[in-house]
Amino acid sequence: MAIKPTILKGTRDFSSEEIFKRNYIKKILRSTFEIFGYEPIETPSFEKLETLTGQYGEEGDRLIFKILNSGEKVKKADINSLEKGNYEKFSRSISEKALRFDLTVPFARYVSQNQNKISFPFKRYQIQPVWRADRPQHGRFQEFFQCDADIIGNRSLWQEIEMVLLYDEVFRRLNINGVKIRINHRKILFSLSLLFNISDRFIEFTNILDKIDKIGVDAVIKEFENKKFPKKATDKIKSLIKFSGTTLEKLKFIEKTFKGSNQDRSGLDDISFVLNYISKTKLKSSTIDFEFSLARGLNYYTGIIIEVSPPTEIKIGSIGGGGRYDDLTSKFGLKNISGIGISFGFERIYYVMESLKLFPENIKKLTEVLFLNFGNELISNIHDEINKLRKNNISCELYPSKDKLKKQLSYANKKGILFVIIIGPEEFKEKKFSIRNMISGDQFTFSIKDLQVKINEIVKG
Amino acid sequence: MAIKPTILKGTRDFSSEEIFKRNYIKKILRSTFEIFGYEPIETPSFEKLETLTGQYGEEGDRLIFKILNSGEKVKKADINSLEKGNYEKFSRSISEKALRFDLTVPFARYVSQNQNKISFPFKRYQIQPVWRADRPQHGRFQEFFQCDADIIGNRSLWQEIEMVLLYDEVFRRLNINGVKIRINHRKILFSLSLLFNISDRFIEFTNILDKIDKIGVDAVIKEFENKKFPKKATDKIKSLIKFSGTTLEKLKFIEKTFKGSNQDRSGLDDISFVLNYISKTKLKSSTIDFEFSLARGLNYYTGIIIEVSPPTEIKIGSIGGGGRYDDLTSKFGLKNISGIGISFGFERIYYVMESLKLFPENIKKLTEVLFLNFGNELISNIHDEINKLRKNNISCELYPSKDKLKKQLSYANKKGILFVIIIGPEEFKEKKFSIRNMISGDQFTFSIKDLQVKINEIVKG
Repeated sequence: MAIKPTILKGTRDFSSEEIFKRNYIKKILRSTFEIFGYEPIETPSFEKLETLTGQYGEEGDRLIFKILNSGEKVKKADINSLEKGNYEKFSRSISEKALRFDLTVPFARYVSQNQNKISFPFKRYQIQPVWRADRPQHGRFQEFFQCDADIIGNRSLWQEIEMVLLYDEVFRRLNINGVKIRINHRKILFSLSLLFNISDRFIEFTNILDKIDKIGVDAVIKEFENKKFPKKATDKIKSLIKFSGTTLEKLKFIEKTFKGSNQDRSGLDDISFVLNYISKTKLKSSTIDFEFSLARGLNYYTGIIIEVSPPTEIKIGSIGGGGRYDDLTSKFGLKNISGIGISFGFERIYYVMESLKLFPENIKKLTEVLFLNFGNELISNIHDEINKLRKNNISCELYPSKDKLKKQLSYANKKGILFVIIIGPEEFKEKKFSIRNMISGDQFTFSIKDLQVKINEIVKG
Repeated sequence: MAIKPTILKGTRDFSSEEIFKRNYIKKILRSTFEIFGYEPIETPSFEKLETLTGQYGEEGDRLIFKILNSGEKVKKADINSLEKGNYEKFSRSISEKALRFDLTVPFARYVSQNQNKISFPFKRYQIQPVWRADRPQHGRFQEFFQCDADIIGNRSLWQEIEMVLLYDEVFRRLNINGVKIRINHRKILFSLSLLFNISDRFIEFTNILDKIDKIGVDAVIKEFENKKFPKKATDKIKSLIKFSGTTLEKLKFIEKTFKGSNQDRSGLDDISFVLNYISKTKLKSSTIDFEFSLARGLNYYTGIIIEVSPPTEIKIGSIGGGGRYDDLTSKFGLKNISGIGISFGFERIYYVMESLKLFPENIKKLTEVLFLNFGNELISNIHDEINKLRKNNISCELYPSKDKLKKQLSYANKKGILFVIIIGPEEFKEKKFSIRNMISGDQFTFSIKDLQVKINEIVKG
């Protein structure tokens, strides 16, 4: 019985037009990364399961796609765990490999593995698909591209500044204007948690803050109340996230909040340094703002964190984010290596480009010329001309069989081929060929000995 | 405890130099495919297991990587089959998805699924990784790229000719000369099997023939004997595969072999048609030969089959292959659709290019200019110049921190950065900057107001 030809939910086929558009974005990302001095690397689609797990939190680990051991290697299945309902342990007993969940952990593994070959600071970019066993829904896929740029091995704040400029330059080249870059510092958040006497619940504090974009300020405050944070702390958090003002006013507000305490102020100093330089230069596509409710979900961040929102007319979440991490490679035995990395949300950037009609017209490269088919004998005599055109980078096709002209012309129309070459028995006898413009209907006839020159002129001109 | 940072056997990390080289090949493949009128498509990395299985033979099916069902979905594990040692059935009870094993079956699924949207004949190319659970060994990977071009929906032999020309043009553009294209026809093989009275063992016959490249002619003949093929048949096969001569002599030999029998001669006619045209045109990088011992391992081929060998100085197997198939989509309910497809062995072509030193020099795009770092204050004053250079597509970096000059210069050397910009306190006071060529050691000093012009001149000139 025939199998129904369908793909899995959460996965996508890409048509040629989509591929040309995706490649357009990738090309701009690549070239901008390279202009900033980042080198590409690529890592395998699957890694040892133990390399990937334990880095994304419990929820993240659950979303890692595991690859089943092959053949007899499933023999060691831990039936006992299965029967006890410990599905995770059972799964691990028959799975040693897992699909890449993000680009950061494989990068940390790569740096640790090649530490003796790499000269630090190491600037790399990586554009590859990742896989997550998320429940598929509108706009959320199980397979999607990530694009990361990281610098590892140096603590200079000029790297934070570079990341902001890199965002700005990529979006400028993509012609996306009105991007909003928001920054904060994990140390500011930690100092605040100390001030509010909730530092023992720091992770929880940041995880709730992180929901502001999704559920809004009021719901977040309610969650602090529901989760029984002390009333005093909740009040202070409330005044904090309800505060609105310019960047300068916000800096002063935090300044005031810290005043008189002996809290670590280095986070605030870092932010001031970065904002100070950025205010002197000119961002082209973006604006930047300090936002002390920005938290970022991932807990490996230790310094400045960044999140990027699309132009306000586009109603989707962030289109990029990142931050500084001080300890990502220690899992692999490489300690005290600070790094900073940012990510471009490829699929969302695609959505923004599509919504704002920012892709160039005629992005799809089409066959330029179709030779109609009037039978094998005629084709044998002129087929070399097709070869010559192709060597000259004219994209052309021979209609493969001697079908009715109507069918052949309809193929040209459907495929969007602009020029059709007609060399029927009559033309051939008179040593001529005709070229028809399929849109205007114009048709011209020339001597066959001028075929290369004329087609080149007409197609390229 | 730290986890050892290593990758799985059979997988690879790619350095930036390798990526630039791989992209060089991909770019030529893409552009040549497009010049021949093929459109790109991409399909998901994983498909329903049932979509992929049953197409590659029992051995192939075993090599498909299965993805373990997530979370609770392993509950349905068929313990009974596990205990009976039926690992395949057990594996299927906890796995619904599998990684792409080749590009042909996903293409057949795509065509069947989109048959109402596609205008036939449909020409597509696809360049994506595939995964196989082969035992990793030298030069054989579990993750590797395939590059396929197919035309589906038409039976014209001009497509067979086009495939030969496509091979020739790709290798011409890659500058690989001395490629050998070998062709045969499954119908010739089938007619021969009828003549030899072994048509009931046709698949076995072709599978043994297919080993000639690997184990040699004598071992193949021995295998026919060992597998107890009739002596008469074995003798005839022997005389067949030992025959050597020109293409024309080989055609005549088959002609003679068929003479007097009422065997289907259409295979021979097809081959003659193709060879006849090709002999009239000029292949640039390749030669073509008829080889009646060529069988191709995959049994979905029904017409002309093609295999491509690298230049003789390179001792690896084929670097490409393909053929006509008449029934690939019927598994998905789409019947009577003939197609032809060829594959380029990406990893082996890379090996050929590397061995013959065919990659262009300086294929790796490097940072062109490094600004040395003399402290935050100086950098603040000149950082905008870096931004401007980047907007002008000069690839440049700021050394992130005020390390010792020796360390900064060593970074430039290790990364192969040719020009270093020096704006120390003295230069800044005098409104000057110096540019040093790291290879020649030449150093020039200019007025800082000419920085953009001078760097552009020196780097681009």
